[in-house]
Amino acid sequence: MATLKVPASVPSPAEDSEQLHKAFSGWGTNEALIIQILAHRNASQRKLIQETYAATYGEELLKALDKELSSDFERAVLLWTPVPAERDAFLANEATKMLTANKLVIMEIACTRSSHDLFLVRQAYHARYKKSLEEDIAHHTSGDFRKLLVPLVTAFRYEGDEVNMTLAKSEAKHLHEKISEKCCNDEEIIRILTTRSKAQLNATLNHYNNQFGNAINKDLKTDPKDEYLALLRATIKCLTYPEKYFAKTLRLAINKLGTDEWALTRVVTTRAEVDMQRIKEEYQRRNSVPLDRAIAGDTSGDYEKMLLSLIGHGDC
Amino acid sequence: MATLKVPASVPSPAEDSEQLHKAFSGWGTNEALIIQILAHRNASQRKLIQETYAATYGEELLKALDKELSSDFERAVLLWTPVPAERDAFLANEATKMLTANKLVIMEIACTRSSHDLFLVRQAYHARYKKSLEEDIAHHTSGDFRKLLVPLVTAFRYEGDEVNMTLAKSEAKHLHEKISEKCCNDEEIIRILTTRSKAQLNATLNHYNNQFGNAINKDLKTDPKDEYLALLRATIKCLTYPEKYFAKTLRLAINKLGTDEWALTRVVTTRAEVDMQRIKEEYQRRNSVPLDRAIAGDTSGDYEKMLLSLIGHGDC
Repeated sequence: MATLKVPASVPSPAEDSEQLHKAFSGWGTNEALIIQILAHRNASQRKLIQETYAATYGEELLKALDKELSSDFERAVLLWTPVPAERDAFLANEATKMLTANKLVIMEIACTRSSHDLFLVRQAYHARYKKSLEEDIAHHTSGDFRKLLVPLVTAFRYEGDEVNMTLAKSEAKHLHEKISEKCCNDEEIIRILTTRSKAQLNATLNHYNNQFGNAINKDLKTDPKDEYLALLRATIKCLTYPEKYFAKTLRLAINKLGTDEWALTRVVTTRAEVDMQRIKEEYQRRNSVPLDRAIAGDTSGDYEKMLLSLIGHGDC
Repeated sequence: MATLKVPASVPSPAEDSEQLHKAFSGWGTNEALIIQILAHRNASQRKLIQETYAATYGEELLKALDKELSSDFERAVLLWTPVPAERDAFLANEATKMLTANKLVIMEIACTRSSHDLFLVRQAYHARYKKSLEEDIAHHTSGDFRKLLVPLVTAFRYEGDEVNMTLAKSEAKHLHEKISEKCCNDEEIIRILTTRSKAQLNATLNHYNNQFGNAINKDLKTDPKDEYLALLRATIKCLTYPEKYFAKTLRLAINKLGTDEWALTRVVTTRAEVDMQRIKEEYQRRNSVPLDRAIAGDTSGDYEKMLLSLIGHGDC
């Protein structure tokens, strides 16, 4: 469930554009007005605002926001405003350009979006970067990371509920054998995790747990410093229990010395319209403090207000 | 260019359905009427006929055809009638179910359809088989074949004309090094062939030819019996010169002792609406005999009439 709050009566895209243009005019920027509008419009409403703004003022809204805003607040607004596919294409491209490709971001996009939404990201990537998503990821990664990440981003998983229990049992057995032999980069492990439907994987991993006594992620924690194993565990978590994965990402971002604003902004902007309600519940269960209080304690100013608005704090 | 001939004035889907229904009624089947209608309607017209037929007579048209027809003619009509995405999903599924997955068919579908059309095949596969295409292919292949086929079918290649010549040169060099070392299953070779756009690959392979004196496929012909090398060469041919690949497939199918009707039917039905005109030119250039004469010499009856109609023989 989303936390985004949209007012009962939404102004027209023309009115919203005009207000935003006013927020940029005169002395200083009216950040409160920007939050009041953009943090309370859904993806299709924001898309219309962007189109209307560009047609009316001859400038892209994102460019205007880029000029007016700064630091963490700027990043939150610029990540939030685009439609999800364009936002994800941007995040994935940014991740591939980092010195060591930010593998968690790429995996998150590949594993927590619906099959169709992931395909829209690939289309948006073509349109913006004149290349394919998998081409950039394959080019900028290597070894086991590439073997896992490329099939994850190119997957178009079946999304029905059907489960083949015979298959689940035989694949659970295979996973257990290879993990016991410490062959965690085994081709078959990667094949199973990157091609099976989420329903089928769930059945396989439940059977694994029942049959072999441990959750698979426990068995994959033999070396806490092994980066590939960490990515494998995160992949499994994203595929089977994304709310828990995101709650943990938020916890690590907030509890870090100095706050990891990049992770915090990314999770809030990408999940506010999807499952942030469930993430908040998971967060509170695990940390005994509500997410909004944790965010308020760690951030300030317009950035704080933007994040809190997106996670459903206050009225709209 | 397509060879399919559609009459200037096409009857309504209701009239076509009625005529088809008549062709099935009474003593014997009117095969000529079936050819006259179905072999002269494009994909969207055939789709409408199927929908209208099912709505009017309470039976799927493909089921009715299946009951009425037999042998090679039946297969040609059943492969031709569905829209391309459904036909390809069927062909790919059939290929994965063969004892040794028919790798050429899978590769052909992955490499000669547009990125968008390949995605439509993956959607049609979900709908019909309740599984993903890559899941079945990964499950039924192994080793080097899997390493090549899975990224081929999951690719969503960029289709713009932009070419990066620096990249083309460095990737051509890499291809040449690995092929010289006889490492033809090298990860980077597979990455380049499975992720780059066709325009970019073309530049890379042209540079390879100019710089190293041989076309890449010549260098990949070290062992004519090596099945993986044969698949690699066919992949490169399909990505860069599909008409030539299909002309050769037709030549092998026709010249074979006993004719390979499966290959012949597949190429004619999948290309008649795409590039059969160019394939016919390539065929004649290489064999000094027109394709229609070669087909007429090797086939007979309704099967012959169906194939010849699809490759543009006679009036409609």
